[in-house]
Amino acid sequence: MKAYALLGGPYQEWPKDLKNIFFRAQRNHDLIIGVDRGSLLLEELQITPDLAVGDFDSLKKAELSKLEKDVSDIRYSNPIKDLTDSELMVQIAFNDYHVSELFIFGATGGRLDHFLVNLFLGLNPKMKQYINKISLIDKQNKIQYFLPGNHVVKRQKDYPYFGVAALSACQKLNILTAKYELRDYSSELPHVFSSNEFQNNRDSFVLSFDQGLVAIIFSKDLDRYQKLL
Amino acid sequence: MKAYALLGGPYQEWPKDLKNIFFRAQRNHDLIIGVDRGSLLLEELQITPDLAVGDFDSLKKAELSKLEKDVSDIRYSNPIKDLTDSELMVQIAFNDYHVSELFIFGATGGRLDHFLVNLFLGLNPKMKQYINKISLIDKQNKIQYFLPGNHVVKRQKDYPYFGVAALSACQKLNILTAKYELRDYSSELPHVFSSNEFQNNRDSFVLSFDQGLVAIIFSKDLDRYQKLL
Repeated sequence: MKAYALLGGPYQEWPKDLKNIFFRAQRNHDLIIGVDRGSLLLEELQITPDLAVGDFDSLKKAELSKLEKDVSDIRYSNPIKDLTDSELMVQIAFNDYHVSELFIFGATGGRLDHFLVNLFLGLNPKMKQYINKISLIDKQNKIQYFLPGNHVVKRQKDYPYFGVAALSACQKLNILTAKYELRDYSSELPHVFSSNEFQNNRDSFVLSFDQGLVAIIFSKDLDRYQKLL
Repeated sequence: MKAYALLGGPYQEWPKDLKNIFFRAQRNHDLIIGVDRGSLLLEELQITPDLAVGDFDSLKKAELSKLEKDVSDIRYSNPIKDLTDSELMVQIAFNDYHVSELFIFGATGGRLDHFLVNLFLGLNPKMKQYINKISLIDKQNKIQYFLPGNHVVKRQKDYPYFGVAALSACQKLNILTAKYELRDYSSELPHVFSSNEFQNNRDSFVLSFDQGLVAIIFSKDLDRYQKLL
């Protein structure tokens, strides 16, 4: 069973076909998760989440009552938080529901401290065991996480570009058989190598590093960005 | 003289009154800067930049010719880059034009590796001397950078929330006289403390830390985010 989660980020950043993504997931009996306001957004899309996680502080009383009536598994996060709502959701999805993979939507845009909390999810040592099974997806980007080691990173359909983000100190980072190669990069500071591409005749590149956490940000251009005002 | 720069990020993320912000800057004889495609976007707003920086790779030949005709100072970045286009722009603005402050727009949204390159600007040791004079601004966020020391961080009009982002390892981070306080936090990993607020009766909070780079992300909610589809 896979899991599909919606967080509270602005709908302008969602993939265009998000409603269908969730409908399809529902038909496949995958786990549908709403995080905080994301639970409500799912209901507005006529999708009842199987699991709702959050402190639900920003919800009106009637909104929360409806959620409590509809959703079979609601988990209230602790206001003095050990884990963020998103992190708690990850833990429940993998520990209690044993999902094989987790796709997170609604994680980007809006208030950027919220986005960074979501992006930095993988830096929490408690998330380490799950992080290579998680993707963050919006209308233009797909983010995957990699732990130290050797990885063959596959080309993702519809995403011509990728950036390699060392989110913390890293040791011996290599990007090989990609358009722009990098050898033996080490730094105490996070750094992003942006706008890389796959080689024409290849469907993968090789990523390796000895220490740190790397996010690969697959991305595409959107036509409408070219047109102004 | 202050400087106002537009990068190539999607216009959907710009502050609503961006055109006026640049017109006002022009009237005040502040420095107007376009970075790569941002130069073109400024021209579409009927504003000729004083300075254009970039490799201009993504521009059509006619677009570049027009820029070269209109803009008095064009700097071509090196394809084998030591500095990113944004970093080169920062260096030129402060070193050659001696601006007192730099406001950067068009840095967020779109391809998220590009956004992270902009956000992580302050992590480049070559940018350190300028970083406390730089703000990144979009329709919902204003990001400022702080170097180690004691800081009184002032409330920003129209931004009720703030997040404190340790962008690299940090030592002895304190957030005092804010709604949520933090004492003596140290970590080898970047971390974001999100959704903080000023205390009701205060117009500032105290930020201090011994080592690292901290970004304060001031933010607000946008009404239209509440309304779905």
